[in-house]
Amino acid sequence: MGDVDNRRGGRAHNRRDEILRVALETFAERGYRGTSLAVVAERIGLTQQGVLHYFPTKQALLVEVLKLRDAEDYQRFDGGSDEPHLDGMRHLMEYNATRPGVVQSFTVLSAESVTDAHPAREYFIARYRVAREHHVAGLREELGERLAAGLTPEQASALLVAVMDGLQLQWLLDPDQVDLVDLVDAFARLLREGATPAVPAVAGAVADA
Amino acid sequence: MGDVDNRRGGRAHNRRDEILRVALETFAERGYRGTSLAVVAERIGLTQQGVLHYFPTKQALLVEVLKLRDAEDYQRFDGGSDEPHLDGMRHLMEYNATRPGVVQSFTVLSAESVTDAHPAREYFIARYRVAREHHVAGLREELGERLAAGLTPEQASALLVAVMDGLQLQWLLDPDQVDLVDLVDAFARLLREGATPAVPAVAGAVADA
Repeated sequence: MGDVDNRRGGRAHNRRDEILRVALETFAERGYRGTSLAVVAERIGLTQQGVLHYFPTKQALLVEVLKLRDAEDYQRFDGGSDEPHLDGMRHLMEYNATRPGVVQSFTVLSAESVTDAHPAREYFIARYRVAREHHVAGLREELGERLAAGLTPEQASALLVAVMDGLQLQWLLDPDQVDLVDLVDAFARLLREGATPAVPAVAGAVADA
Repeated sequence: MGDVDNRRGGRAHNRRDEILRVALETFAERGYRGTSLAVVAERIGLTQQGVLHYFPTKQALLVEVLKLRDAEDYQRFDGGSDEPHLDGMRHLMEYNATRPGVVQSFTVLSAESVTDAHPAREYFIARYRVAREHHVAGLREELGERLAAGLTPEQASALLVAVMDGLQLQWLLDPDQVDLVDLVDAFARLLREGATPAVPAVAGAVADA
């Protein structure tokens, strides 16, 4: 990439990571439109030119920040784990409850992306499609083809994504009133307990099933 | 308020409404931080001073926009209606599906409000508390004290708010893939069908209840 990298070796890699981390924080605080590369640079003690060396535009920086976060989460919660799908989502919420800054960033940027011509709009459209497909597969594996109240895995998947996004928003605003993990668990129970006839009330009916 | 109002009478009232309507659109497109009073003024053909005559600050304008929207929705979907609570929420989603601009505005501003020192942060904290309490009362009235999968009305209420917010985000990004009304209905079935033993499987058990 040029003289700076040749001279500094591993430090260039660390510098890139540092820019991504600080950019994530800054996007979280100010949104994409309220963030300038100059501010990100200043927080690290670089010139704007120094940031442009690693990321040619603010848009490129945003998309790399989002991709990095998704890749890390995927590694942590889906990479080869064989726990039931909804348990994985509970663990993701437990982890998110320890990192409000990252959740804030995601909440602000995903919502901002619904506006026309937002640079992350296509990214989020694709990301949500992939997420819904991923949950369809996981829910089908855990609960089968017909879920509680006759829901399809496709319907339950869109609802699961909505529940996690929506609860995170409420929790960010009011962490003492909104228990992220307890509520995701409650939703998991809704999906699970109706998937087969409810146990106590239908002892006789189970034999018919 | 001054000479302008005295001279123009009803027109001042219309002008105020027009500012609110255009401000809602502009906040929706650009977020709060990306919107200036100058842009709102320009879109209406006023000077910035003309807007400041009605709303002293951008923050005041934002809060009035949000209050107006809430008051209109409350009138429309809760004011004296005696339909079951979850039917009311279905009707709200049917209505929202016809006004993506308003939904976009709400989605962007509520998410942006999680950031530190956002002028609508306190507004949204209070708004979500009121919304959750409102749904607790409505769900308790419709479904009783113990809902599907043993959920409390409080848990179901936070989930209902999350589902509506989260589905709206997915729908704004991908309206052909995400059916707002079908999915809110699916969630209503989850809450309803477990609240009493599911009808087809437990014909015998109903008599015990």
